[in-house]
Amino acid sequence: MNFELITEDHGARRGQLNFARGVVNTPAFMPVGTAGTVKALEVSNVLETGSEILLGNTFHLMLKPGDTIVKKLGGLHRFMQWEKPILTDSGGFQVWSLGKLAKINEEGVHFKSPYDGSKHFLSPETSMEIQNNLGSDIVMIFDECTPYPATFEEAQRSMELSLRWAKRSKQSHGSDAALFGIVQGGMHEDLRKHSLSELMAIGFDGYAIGGLSVGEPKEDMVRILQDLQTHLPPDSPHYLMGVGKPEDIVSAVAFGIDMFDCVLPTRNARNGQLITSFGELNIRNAEHAQSSQPVDESCACKVCQGYSRAYLHHLDKSKEMLYSILSSYHNTFYYQSLMQSMRDSIEQGEFAKFVKDFYNKRQQSLPIYLKHLEK
Amino acid sequence: MNFELITEDHGARRGQLNFARGVVNTPAFMPVGTAGTVKALEVSNVLETGSEILLGNTFHLMLKPGDTIVKKLGGLHRFMQWEKPILTDSGGFQVWSLGKLAKINEEGVHFKSPYDGSKHFLSPETSMEIQNNLGSDIVMIFDECTPYPATFEEAQRSMELSLRWAKRSKQSHGSDAALFGIVQGGMHEDLRKHSLSELMAIGFDGYAIGGLSVGEPKEDMVRILQDLQTHLPPDSPHYLMGVGKPEDIVSAVAFGIDMFDCVLPTRNARNGQLITSFGELNIRNAEHAQSSQPVDESCACKVCQGYSRAYLHHLDKSKEMLYSILSSYHNTFYYQSLMQSMRDSIEQGEFAKFVKDFYNKRQQSLPIYLKHLEK
Repeated sequence: MNFELITEDHGARRGQLNFARGVVNTPAFMPVGTAGTVKALEVSNVLETGSEILLGNTFHLMLKPGDTIVKKLGGLHRFMQWEKPILTDSGGFQVWSLGKLAKINEEGVHFKSPYDGSKHFLSPETSMEIQNNLGSDIVMIFDECTPYPATFEEAQRSMELSLRWAKRSKQSHGSDAALFGIVQGGMHEDLRKHSLSELMAIGFDGYAIGGLSVGEPKEDMVRILQDLQTHLPPDSPHYLMGVGKPEDIVSAVAFGIDMFDCVLPTRNARNGQLITSFGELNIRNAEHAQSSQPVDESCACKVCQGYSRAYLHHLDKSKEMLYSILSSYHNTFYYQSLMQSMRDSIEQGEFAKFVKDFYNKRQQSLPIYLKHLEK
Repeated sequence: MNFELITEDHGARRGQLNFARGVVNTPAFMPVGTAGTVKALEVSNVLETGSEILLGNTFHLMLKPGDTIVKKLGGLHRFMQWEKPILTDSGGFQVWSLGKLAKINEEGVHFKSPYDGSKHFLSPETSMEIQNNLGSDIVMIFDECTPYPATFEEAQRSMELSLRWAKRSKQSHGSDAALFGIVQGGMHEDLRKHSLSELMAIGFDGYAIGGLSVGEPKEDMVRILQDLQTHLPPDSPHYLMGVGKPEDIVSAVAFGIDMFDCVLPTRNARNGQLITSFGELNIRNAEHAQSSQPVDESCACKVCQGYSRAYLHHLDKSKEMLYSILSSYHNTFYYQSLMQSMRDSIEQGEFAKFVKDFYNKRQQSLPIYLKHLEK
């Protein structure tokens, strides 16, 4: 992988990740293909939305169907028929979410499969091996996600464990895939900066920010991103993990983030929430039952070009799978259009205007931490 | 609608239904779009399988979202974005299946919605109105499906009620859509022939055979079809309702049937059964967990061209919607390929060879009622 920074505008970055499997234009949104599929979407649909890279889940795939089976079948790309790049997470976040089913020590994490109770072990070394078996294009280091809230000491202890694991991840990373470090340190700027500088000393192909969007107030996330912005190496991609809502992505782009992933567009779609240029729309509301309007008149996706809100309302009410298919398609398309608009606006030196328009269409005022874009 | 019989071979018919909305080549299989969608399939997918006509369910659509809402939104074609012809059933079969929730008298059927307990009434007149509201291209008369088993007297009483309803259906049919009669009469050839000749006296655009595939032995269905074959008007389409398995469709084509519908390909797909040229394959079997083979090597569909059995096995096990999407696609594609092969073989005067090959590939012997094709 090679990263090229094309241009900047008001701190927002327009770049390009070049892989043997294709180009990923940044800022980029990665749909999540948890178990070897973006939920409810065929690969051809995912491509139509403009997606150029997917995220695959180490935790889920190592348990079902098993990474050695995926390897035997030619790797994750071939297994799921996705030919463009794939980033795999390390499994760290998911085992951390298991709570009592997981036991952490210096070596790694022993845990029981939530599917069948079978025993498994994840460590920097096994995570690298599994991500290699999957055939990932971007491998993430194995880290511990610091809980929220955490005291300074707790966050420090956790961040230092993650740094030791980062070194072991780097040492055992055997493939020619890119390897990204993950900045931890809770809500403490000093710890975050220490984590980043130590990771840079080890040397990675990209730098992710983990342990955000874990329940903290938005101001904390913004504070950490603002503080890290000038310290992140400009010639490497910056990846904010697990974020998020459209407005959070827009803000993070303003703070120099290049890559995002989130289950929100597909998960919220299945739960009735359609994401549009004017905000969120709950298709389950009775007002949509007889509406011949499309979900979003300004959206170019096939769902908005063809179907009425009434049809989607009906499909959801009838528990038809086509509802999830169409709504997941629209939401993912919306996210990719948003990224495309941001990329275009940065290229044209109009990112500040883009952000103001984004909030105007949603009839929301510009948040205080983006006020500098008004000048 | 206009029907054109192109050629015949060993009793099998190759024809064409011409509509303003397009041509339907017969023998034709109609996927079932119960609630305004073929389950798990986008319209573009349904088109890719080679489907030229869909079946819509009056019963389901009158209750959800309601036929007046569908009408207000421009009709069923526009609602679901399907531009080719649609046949709607009359709702008769579904209300008959409600059991105690339905009360039949001479006028029609009073029933309670299984969704919300609301009260509804279906009669020849209301069924015609609803099918007209939906914008159907082929309207089915409202009839009573004779239960199985039924004595001669029970079957006769039911068949005669259906004939009186057939007259009322014809009288109240207000649109220029085609109107099909439905032959009833249980398992009694005499009643069946009487039903058919009375329907022909009323005069319909096509003749359906109802009340089969309701639990009777296959021999009974074959006996009725064989007996009706020479009596059905050759210049009208013959439609066997609700059938069925590939082998039943092949047999029925040999008895001069032109049209079929069934939920089997999509329902069985969702339950793990994939239908192939060599018979049925249960993707849930452990033997498929690591198989790099496609579902059916001889199938040209995108699922068989791209994905392994192991991937489908994994998606099903992970309860991923993509499993239902891909399996429904394959099964529907298989059905349409089967119909295409039959149409080709009839045109080429090789229907008998086709039937023998069909059974050979499945490693089954030719059933006794198709032995005449061996000569």
